[in-house]
Amino acid sequence: MIKVFGHTAPDTDSTGSPIIWAWYLNEVRKTPAQAVLQGEPNTEAAWMLKRWNLDKPQIIADVAAGDQCVIVDTNNPAELPASLDDADVIEIIDHHLLAGGIKTRVPINITLRPLACTATIMHDLIGEDMARAPQSIKGAMLTCILSDTLEFRSPTTTVHDRAVAEKLAADLGINITDYATEMFAAKSDVSAFSNEALLRMDSKEYELGGKQLRISVLETTSPQVLLARKDALLAAMPAVAAADGADEVLLFVVDILREQATLLVPNDYVRQIAERSFGVTVTGDSVVLPGVMSRKKQIIPVLAV
Amino acid sequence: MIKVFGHTAPDTDSTGSPIIWAWYLNEVRKTPAQAVLQGEPNTEAAWMLKRWNLDKPQIIADVAAGDQCVIVDTNNPAELPASLDDADVIEIIDHHLLAGGIKTRVPINITLRPLACTATIMHDLIGEDMARAPQSIKGAMLTCILSDTLEFRSPTTTVHDRAVAEKLAADLGINITDYATEMFAAKSDVSAFSNEALLRMDSKEYELGGKQLRISVLETTSPQVLLARKDALLAAMPAVAAADGADEVLLFVVDILREQATLLVPNDYVRQIAERSFGVTVTGDSVVLPGVMSRKKQIIPVLAV
Repeated sequence: MIKVFGHTAPDTDSTGSPIIWAWYLNEVRKTPAQAVLQGEPNTEAAWMLKRWNLDKPQIIADVAAGDQCVIVDTNNPAELPASLDDADVIEIIDHHLLAGGIKTRVPINITLRPLACTATIMHDLIGEDMARAPQSIKGAMLTCILSDTLEFRSPTTTVHDRAVAEKLAADLGINITDYATEMFAAKSDVSAFSNEALLRMDSKEYELGGKQLRISVLETTSPQVLLARKDALLAAMPAVAAADGADEVLLFVVDILREQATLLVPNDYVRQIAERSFGVTVTGDSVVLPGVMSRKKQIIPVLAV
Repeated sequence: MIKVFGHTAPDTDSTGSPIIWAWYLNEVRKTPAQAVLQGEPNTEAAWMLKRWNLDKPQIIADVAAGDQCVIVDTNNPAELPASLDDADVIEIIDHHLLAGGIKTRVPINITLRPLACTATIMHDLIGEDMARAPQSIKGAMLTCILSDTLEFRSPTTTVHDRAVAEKLAADLGINITDYATEMFAAKSDVSAFSNEALLRMDSKEYELGGKQLRISVLETTSPQVLLARKDALLAAMPAVAAADGADEVLLFVVDILREQATLLVPNDYVRQIAERSFGVTVTGDSVVLPGVMSRKKQIIPVLAV
């Protein structure tokens, strides 16, 4: 049984894409496959599962020697199971930069595309067989694209992502604006989470000037809910960084509707990063970054120390 | 101007595929691109250029900072320009295992497929636009596939490679058997090459048990021509290994028509590799390996020390 999984701390694309590809492998390619998750799905991903009546995939802690694995929505070993080198990676489908850490023993299918969303790539790979996809698979695909593009607001959005999402919405008889509003409300409902959990919810490791950074992003339509917890989030950063082997946590609260991010600034080091990377002047313990929505396109590429 | 190139010591696929993809970028995607080579094409590749009236691509020694590069038919840094890290890799199309050494700064198009030939992958990526390809591009594609599959004899051959080649041959009005015979005769015409050049002509580096091996393959329809030079080839091995930073050279003379390889055995160390890898007993300075035609499928995976 092939295991299909995305990155740790699964967001909507890393929850939906394994389900989509496992459907394709089982139903079209007639190859037994199972979607699995590396951790609990986030609130938006959990909403997607409920909305489309999809079973929550089993959560795995690691893979075993000889497991056949399809990796989706990442190719970064830091976000993958510890024992991946012992398993057999048989396919990779992703929309991130090539991280360079994975080797394979034999030639396999690898499809990386500079699109906003893994589900868009899968739509293309599945091709005419999309006609056989049930509503739940099309619904998962649509949700992944609207999530990763922030309803087409993110600069990662391509014409093709948007066209695929609009086609799926039309097929499903869904009004995108209404649907995305409901979806973003689910994503923004983070009141139940601890400060530590919020700092780790959507987080990627990144090295800058010899320091290890946790670059965390929280996308929300209710930024005031998170910013009201600013002092507690700042206070939680040192312990989270220490526990995770990082030097600093950079938390960006992305306001989906106003299309801006607020970066929390716990100390002079992060203040310096903020000023040198984004050309702003920081006066307090946070700074607003107009137009910044995408870690991949607008944060990681400009980070400077 | 985008540079499109394959591996060092260019064979037919690493000569033809850059030409095919540069045509596609220029004529279909309207993006200026140029095929270039990392070294002189081998005799079969040179025959292809002449047969289809294609200009020999410019030979480059390295790439420069900021060059936009498309890498085809390899993803192994050992086979790529020394300054690749300073350039911008914008696309990779390949049919080899993921070597793991390349990183990109941003997401790009990467297409790896477990097919016999890069040109087959390009045929699929080009899709309906193949209708716009001139005869020379279709001819290069056909030659690449017949070369990499050894006219469908190699175990790397897939049903799909064969179907694409047969379609191209039909389009071009070419009899595959006659064409391949002429092509293999060109590949086998290596009388002009020095022993050192033959040992490096189609060679890949490989680490085994802490030693660095040069795994060289010469595919020919006239093995007797090469085996008549066996003593001189054996004598040339230590100097070639030393100059190239390798511990040993393993030379496999592949007899395309009899579908077997002869491995030259210069010393006890290579004899031990031969016996443990292929389950044969070596009595002299060479050994015949029935059925062995593919370095990728039948040599690299079984090598043991």
